[in-house]
Amino acid sequence: MKKTDVLVIGGSAAGLVTAVTSRSNFPDKKVTVVRKEKQVLVPCGIPYIFGSLEGSQQNIIPDSKLENAGVDLIVDEVTSVDCEAKICQTKNGEQISFEKIVFATGSVPNVPKWLKGTDLENVFTVPKDKVYIDALREKIKNIKNIVVIGGGFIGVEVSDELNKVGKNVTLVEVLPHVLGAVFEEETATKAENALIERGVTVKSGSGVKEITGQGKVSGVLLANGETIKAEAVILSMGYVANTELAKNAGLELNIFGQIEVDEYMRTESLNVLAVGDCAQKRDFFTRRNTPGMLASTACAESRIVGMNLYGLVTTKNFKGTLSIFFTKIGEQGFGVAGLTNSIAKKQNLPIFTSRFEGVDKHPGKLAGAHKQMVELVVSNRSGLLLGGTVIGGASTGEIVNIIGLAIQNHMTVYDLLTIQIGTHPLLTAPPTAYPLVKAAEIAVKTLRNK
Amino acid sequence: MKKTDVLVIGGSAAGLVTAVTSRSNFPDKKVTVVRKEKQVLVPCGIPYIFGSLEGSQQNIIPDSKLENAGVDLIVDEVTSVDCEAKICQTKNGEQISFEKIVFATGSVPNVPKWLKGTDLENVFTVPKDKVYIDALREKIKNIKNIVVIGGGFIGVEVSDELNKVGKNVTLVEVLPHVLGAVFEEETATKAENALIERGVTVKSGSGVKEITGQGKVSGVLLANGETIKAEAVILSMGYVANTELAKNAGLELNIFGQIEVDEYMRTESLNVLAVGDCAQKRDFFTRRNTPGMLASTACAESRIVGMNLYGLVTTKNFKGTLSIFFTKIGEQGFGVAGLTNSIAKKQNLPIFTSRFEGVDKHPGKLAGAHKQMVELVVSNRSGLLLGGTVIGGASTGEIVNIIGLAIQNHMTVYDLLTIQIGTHPLLTAPPTAYPLVKAAEIAVKTLRNK
Repeated sequence: MKKTDVLVIGGSAAGLVTAVTSRSNFPDKKVTVVRKEKQVLVPCGIPYIFGSLEGSQQNIIPDSKLENAGVDLIVDEVTSVDCEAKICQTKNGEQISFEKIVFATGSVPNVPKWLKGTDLENVFTVPKDKVYIDALREKIKNIKNIVVIGGGFIGVEVSDELNKVGKNVTLVEVLPHVLGAVFEEETATKAENALIERGVTVKSGSGVKEITGQGKVSGVLLANGETIKAEAVILSMGYVANTELAKNAGLELNIFGQIEVDEYMRTESLNVLAVGDCAQKRDFFTRRNTPGMLASTACAESRIVGMNLYGLVTTKNFKGTLSIFFTKIGEQGFGVAGLTNSIAKKQNLPIFTSRFEGVDKHPGKLAGAHKQMVELVVSNRSGLLLGGTVIGGASTGEIVNIIGLAIQNHMTVYDLLTIQIGTHPLLTAPPTAYPLVKAAEIAVKTLRNK
Repeated sequence: MKKTDVLVIGGSAAGLVTAVTSRSNFPDKKVTVVRKEKQVLVPCGIPYIFGSLEGSQQNIIPDSKLENAGVDLIVDEVTSVDCEAKICQTKNGEQISFEKIVFATGSVPNVPKWLKGTDLENVFTVPKDKVYIDALREKIKNIKNIVVIGGGFIGVEVSDELNKVGKNVTLVEVLPHVLGAVFEEETATKAENALIERGVTVKSGSGVKEITGQGKVSGVLLANGETIKAEAVILSMGYVANTELAKNAGLELNIFGQIEVDEYMRTESLNVLAVGDCAQKRDFFTRRNTPGMLASTACAESRIVGMNLYGLVTTKNFKGTLSIFFTKIGEQGFGVAGLTNSIAKKQNLPIFTSRFEGVDKHPGKLAGAHKQMVELVVSNRSGLLLGGTVIGGASTGEIVNIIGLAIQNHMTVYDLLTIQIGTHPLLTAPPTAYPLVKAAEIAVKTLRNK
């Protein structure tokens, strides 16, 4: 029987950060990662394997990160866990005993049972699995017509990348516009148009009814009766928590199938923890369960676990999971931190929005200047900042992070109004019209007239 | 006699934002800007007139910003102010009475008295003056060899731009490296090397002794005896507050010649205010006088004034001036928020630094990925974040702003350690190694071992 102190199951972002942080904080403890994959893909980089990168080899998390931290790595699959006896079994017949166990088993692509034809040849998903992705890439090499089903971030990014290498790509989305689940209609429309301009055919507003074909896929039949010819179909219809192992070990799962944990990612037993896509998240504002699956969130959770495994020494500064995400289509960035108008309305949070449109360099005549739009979501009474949407250029991501940090610091628009920021012609909007501050100014004016 | 409620003297960033914000917050008040210049340059954009832009016309703050806000504009020069009688005189012989007056008279280039030869033909400065800059540009059109004296931000940016359009540029800096007053030696060296790689000749470590020539400039003699041939010389040796008018009006000036004001930019009289380069600033950490002159700071001050002219209704969230600035040389960004190691040491603030080097896209194999370095300056005992230096790509500015916001929110490295950030392959560092969080992680480890 092998023996370790900290056993981490799963080797993607969450598993890696948990293991490395644990070793760093508890150097006397033996930390072991057990994972199925020989090599691990950078999760967020997967769509770019299809176009911008030369192949999956350029999108690998190097094992040296584990080695340098002194983490033991076992490539094998854990098949069962006895949390009481603190022993797990592996596919290769090993037994590993542990003091603490962290489930970082991630998520797997959602393949809806109601959808006919998902078992046809050349129907693919986008799992975090190098072997699968390599095979997929090989199989579609000489294929021209590809239909991507599901216009979330993965569907949009995969479509854009396949289009980039000359495929004839049709993206199907049931909502009125791609990215419609995360962005307001106007932003979603802009993102969709950016994608269309780049050459992707977008069929939004009608879901898929069936994937057609005899043995091999031949097309996709939409709910509106339209048929799209396809030699390959890629499903990007979301991901579900990979928690079969946890369930069999007797752990409680929530309505999204995620392992129930406290603010420090601990289950009922303080020796059994879960992080990342497989673990429960609570919304920053409402503290309800939220299904969000982001590598960035996973890493923040994993750092919390790695620091607090043997006692809550580094208490969290922020409670609950804040959605912060963005993507880039062509030269345009699109992102959100916190709430959008619709999500706030759905949760019955009385809010208003304020918006400013400027430019991300100044003067705007400088080469490479992009429009930059910031829209804030503000609490009706207190002026508390609840969210922000950004459309801009290369700095979009970090501006969304600024908004995210402001939300986490419980800032109001009054606070934002007087913040000091730096500006530079080639790197930011002008000091006279920095969109975040201008949007706050407009919000304060709105509050005054309420 | 003309009559206004709010009189703003000066039409650059500070004057503009003061006037527009005042009108927006006090729509019943008449707001008038008096400025000398027919057209106003975007101040931070001035260096780019020499290369990246087609001319100064592309770097104008449009008067429509004033017009749209309903601000009256008078192009004239205020020659004296009677603060008691609330009347000012202008060069064109006008008298203007006011309720509130805001000095936004800015700064003018520093031309050291000890330096011989500054009156020679083809010796220039870089004032915020379109007419002067246009003439300068015209005069150096057919000149090849230009020496720029002073390697601060303006000197560096002007050198880089002149080099870009084929001039043979030598930049002279008395400190060991260009930008040595704001960056630590290592960062300054990297910035200097970036400039050299782009073709600028840099002579750092030896100041200038004399500008030589008969009537017209012919060269620059350095303190180390070396002579550099020059057909034109551009002085970028700092700026001094333009406060002759204020002094003559009886206002108190501080040791930097700036108008003394309180946290809300008010002088002894609540009806007489000052903003921007001409106004006193107090350091965020020590509350000492600080000479910093930044358009971004000026705009933050101006918003405070515009909102609080008739009563302190929008109290400031942050006290004191925080230095936040950055520049770009080629594809590399260099920036600082708050304290550097040396400045902290000079003020006897016990600190340590922690640093992480990563990449601004992920995987790093993606086209256009840049190295991204974040170095934090942290208080020895409390772990309070006091500063941060960033070297990176296009997102450098906004990352410096994230650090600036964290400082203004009085965050510690413990807080930073657990923040939630968003990440994306094309827009940011990876979630597993976001440099700001990793640097905080290293800082917390250092604190533990102290």
